[in-house]
Amino acid sequence: MEREEGSRVVRGGVNKGISVFDFVLRLMGFMGTLAGAIAMGTTDETLPFFTQFIRFRARYSDLPTFTFFVVANAIVSVYLLLSLPLSIFHIVRSKAKGSRMILIFFDTGMLGLITAGASAAAAIVYLAHKGNVRANWLAICQQFNSFCERISGALIGSFVAMAILILLILLSAIAISRR
Amino acid sequence: MEREEGSRVVRGGVNKGISVFDFVLRLMGFMGTLAGAIAMGTTDETLPFFTQFIRFRARYSDLPTFTFFVVANAIVSVYLLLSLPLSIFHIVRSKAKGSRMILIFFDTGMLGLITAGASAAAAIVYLAHKGNVRANWLAICQQFNSFCERISGALIGSFVAMAILILLILLSAIAISRR
Repeated sequence: MEREEGSRVVRGGVNKGISVFDFVLRLMGFMGTLAGAIAMGTTDETLPFFTQFIRFRARYSDLPTFTFFVVANAIVSVYLLLSLPLSIFHIVRSKAKGSRMILIFFDTGMLGLITAGASAAAAIVYLAHKGNVRANWLAICQQFNSFCERISGALIGSFVAMAILILLILLSAIAISRR
Repeated sequence: MEREEGSRVVRGGVNKGISVFDFVLRLMGFMGTLAGAIAMGTTDETLPFFTQFIRFRARYSDLPTFTFFVVANAIVSVYLLLSLPLSIFHIVRSKAKGSRMILIFFDTGMLGLITAGASAAAAIVYLAHKGNVRANWLAICQQFNSFCERISGALIGSFVAMAILILLILLSAIAISRR
């Protein structure tokens, strides 16, 4: 009986460690997605030359995929922020099970959302850089240089958040199975 | 003690039900991704008119994103097929825990892969249909009509597989927590 108690204490300690790690990861993911949304959402480049009728200007909202990227990042960012209190609750009560299931549920959904946003944006960024000869789509990065740097950089935060969400799901699953 | 035994039997029954559902879902996901990979991988349209130098031909491999889509679908498809024996093992031994953790681990990775492939391809399919005025990318679907229908249809299987993988992760998590 005593031995079981000891084993329980050890298990509780490991689960507490997992919960602390979970909290730190969520904070990192929150910052990553927030940075991605801001970097993409503020992208706006106006070229120094213009004709009589047209000013050459590139904004993230010119491409619907980038709008989706910003929205997806903003949603995941807010979700990760809102999940922080629950993560703290898990540090205090390391045996909680139901609330961990809720987190796995939403984490999985958010993983799908952020992956979709980041991958779709990456496909378009690739096109902007390389173009496609067969479809006769020209690379626009030659003209809009700083625009392209911004949209490429904005992807990083999202992909980091993607890796973090995968880790979070696994950590929650481990914590539940150790109970 | 007897009551606990009864509760265990009921739990085992529910877990068995979850495992059967898990098996059916994996089979559906396998067929969805296989169909997606085949539909995309065999896309090839040659236009009936040609100039002296050029035959107008559209293949999935003209766009690197579609190649990635086919590879991602093939990998997930093979994985889901290989995971079927483990799923059957779970129907027989509904209390298994470690092997369910392994499945959650790989399912989450595969969810990321299939979501990335499907979303990136969807972004390009959207461009092919609508084009983009600001970037001066023309819609290619006016010329390559059946090509566009194929690449749009191929996405469906992937998105179904995406939903299935999310469900599989949740089912495994529920099964582990019920143990």
